[in-house]
Amino acid sequence: MRKSTPILTGSEGIMLAGTGDSTPDLEYATGFRAVDPVVCLCRGSERWLVVPEMEYGRAQEAAPSRGVTVLTPGMLKLTRDQRRRLGGWALGLVRHAGLRRVVVPGLFPHGVAEALQQRGIRVRVARESLFPERAVKRPEEIRHITVAQQAAVIAMRGAIAMIAGAEPDRIGVLRYDGQRLTAERVRRRIQQILLDHDCESRSIIVAPGRQAADPHVTGTGPLHAHEAVVIDIFPRHQTSGYWGDLTRTVARGVAPAALRRMYQAVRAAQTLALQEIRPGKSWKAPHRAAVQAFESWGYETHWETRPPRGFIHGTGHGVGLAVHEAPSLGFTDGRLRAGHVVTVEPGLYDPEIGGIRIEDTVVVTATGWRYLAPCEKRFEL
Amino acid sequence: MRKSTPILTGSEGIMLAGTGDSTPDLEYATGFRAVDPVVCLCRGSERWLVVPEMEYGRAQEAAPSRGVTVLTPGMLKLTRDQRRRLGGWALGLVRHAGLRRVVVPGLFPHGVAEALQQRGIRVRVARESLFPERAVKRPEEIRHITVAQQAAVIAMRGAIAMIAGAEPDRIGVLRYDGQRLTAERVRRRIQQILLDHDCESRSIIVAPGRQAADPHVTGTGPLHAHEAVVIDIFPRHQTSGYWGDLTRTVARGVAPAALRRMYQAVRAAQTLALQEIRPGKSWKAPHRAAVQAFESWGYETHWETRPPRGFIHGTGHGVGLAVHEAPSLGFTDGRLRAGHVVTVEPGLYDPEIGGIRIEDTVVVTATGWRYLAPCEKRFEL
Repeated sequence: MRKSTPILTGSEGIMLAGTGDSTPDLEYATGFRAVDPVVCLCRGSERWLVVPEMEYGRAQEAAPSRGVTVLTPGMLKLTRDQRRRLGGWALGLVRHAGLRRVVVPGLFPHGVAEALQQRGIRVRVARESLFPERAVKRPEEIRHITVAQQAAVIAMRGAIAMIAGAEPDRIGVLRYDGQRLTAERVRRRIQQILLDHDCESRSIIVAPGRQAADPHVTGTGPLHAHEAVVIDIFPRHQTSGYWGDLTRTVARGVAPAALRRMYQAVRAAQTLALQEIRPGKSWKAPHRAAVQAFESWGYETHWETRPPRGFIHGTGHGVGLAVHEAPSLGFTDGRLRAGHVVTVEPGLYDPEIGGIRIEDTVVVTATGWRYLAPCEKRFEL
Repeated sequence: MRKSTPILTGSEGIMLAGTGDSTPDLEYATGFRAVDPVVCLCRGSERWLVVPEMEYGRAQEAAPSRGVTVLTPGMLKLTRDQRRRLGGWALGLVRHAGLRRVVVPGLFPHGVAEALQQRGIRVRVARESLFPERAVKRPEEIRHITVAQQAAVIAMRGAIAMIAGAEPDRIGVLRYDGQRLTAERVRRRIQQILLDHDCESRSIIVAPGRQAADPHVTGTGPLHAHEAVVIDIFPRHQTSGYWGDLTRTVARGVAPAALRRMYQAVRAAQTLALQEIRPGKSWKAPHRAAVQAFESWGYETHWETRPPRGFIHGTGHGVGLAVHEAPSLGFTDGRLRAGHVVTVEPGLYDPEIGGIRIEDTVVVTATGWRYLAPCEKRFEL
């Protein structure tokens, strides 16, 4: 079974396996967005990609500009059983490339790793990103993220216009266009606007009142006057595959003093965190700045309270082919570089009152940062 | 570090790790849709779920009805480094449950498996589904899939109405409402209708002409008279999380004889494949029936041609919390059971002419099958 190609012992390839959705590095490395699972091997600038027979044409079209060799299981020397399993493709590919060792990401499928190990291939798990350069965006990538972010801004304005244009009824429930204004209605409006801008979206957050105390609750039911509504919009452009990410928090009418104070603290924390965004700064610096801001305002910033209260998440994350990617602005070691695209999104959460979060997506420039798509910040409508 | 709980050697737990999107078994086993990665362990009817601190409240709400014990990394005896890594959570959970062996799906993260193995935990990869009962839907699940499928039907009618209402210009390009009718416009209309029915959608296919010769091309550009347009709609209901799946192929005006013959063959193949859907039948039977139908019409059914030509994919797949799940109606061993929900979707592809596919989602009943949501089949409009 072994190929006659000389075995390059000592040399190690990067192996990826999965779909475009599960493994954005695949599209980054090859330019091909895999619908079905594929296997990819990279050594230096060389790339091999094994795709199902049915995907060969599509992969060939996407690949040549990046110097990717596209293969199908039928082009590798495989048994019938191996041709049916991703582990078989991986083994055939490693042999095709004449390698004995691969390094894989932590999320690499264990079944594939085991199939390689059983045939004597050494599989090492990378503790760090295998494509650290993916975090530094090319101008073309920044344009793609900007387009998605602009769609998020337009959708945000549409959502906020609905809430601003709503009137409370006698029990404080907002009404818009003759009907109750619900989280679901606002979410649908957001999704319609995103669709009009060729973006798809999942789990858009419109979280009213105390629901927003949990940053991952998507939100349901009627919106009320005087409560905070967290709106977190993260669209993915359907053609480019790049994401945007934007959060605003608004209240219809005058907010209670406690909520307004939380908003002011979050606003201040974001301003201070943004001041730590420039080349050479630590990935931890913006988070430390936000934590210090919240502590100076007297809010909790440790995560041990249950239910959680205060500033209970990191300050930001990279955005690109994934909505969450490197660099992580929290507890990870690293230095900001020009071309990093990150969110800056401090927030405060209180189980009795609700939540406040303000999030912008910015690109690190030679001297600091700039918004990819500016969006006004206004709390009480 | 080892817990004082007696170690139940010989007993093996099922371990899952990932997000709801990457690992639908997680939601099936626990009722919880994880946004961030979690770890789950199942032994008999017992279930443990380790979630980030921030997700504890949401997981607790989803879990009690299924007897799931929700834990956070802080509740396990872990070092600071272990608390930060999914592998650490998995190790803490296995020890918490007093297990020494786990069985995992093939897509289980290799980094987590390695962390367990390095501490003496045996990790076995399951070759078969770990929750085979997931393929047999409860009445409530069938209702959820039906709702998504009904949305697909309404969106399909909206798309087909656009094409039927379009008129060709002098060069045969379809015009609708004074503008060129493109794949993008039809796709947007489909997505708008799905959104109006609380469904999200990705990569909806509207593939005109020769583009449809590749079953995974989503489709771009103007639609023309006399060409086939493959429309493949797979919505996911945003609340229930269940999917639907529906494909129709239409042509505006009279289609060339070769295309019409392909359509008739696909229609016949679907009818014959559906006749093989009933409890006790092999998962291979519907595919064999479709293959025989295509061969009797003189079309190719092997997958070795490049570019691919003929009937080049399986006949169907299960639909539920994933759009592609067990049972696979093609080459996999198994028997149909009442409550299986499957697509039946033969197709024909020709690089010079285009593609034809007809797909319905049906539930296996005590005596045969029924459509979850019927949708008319008409080719030339």
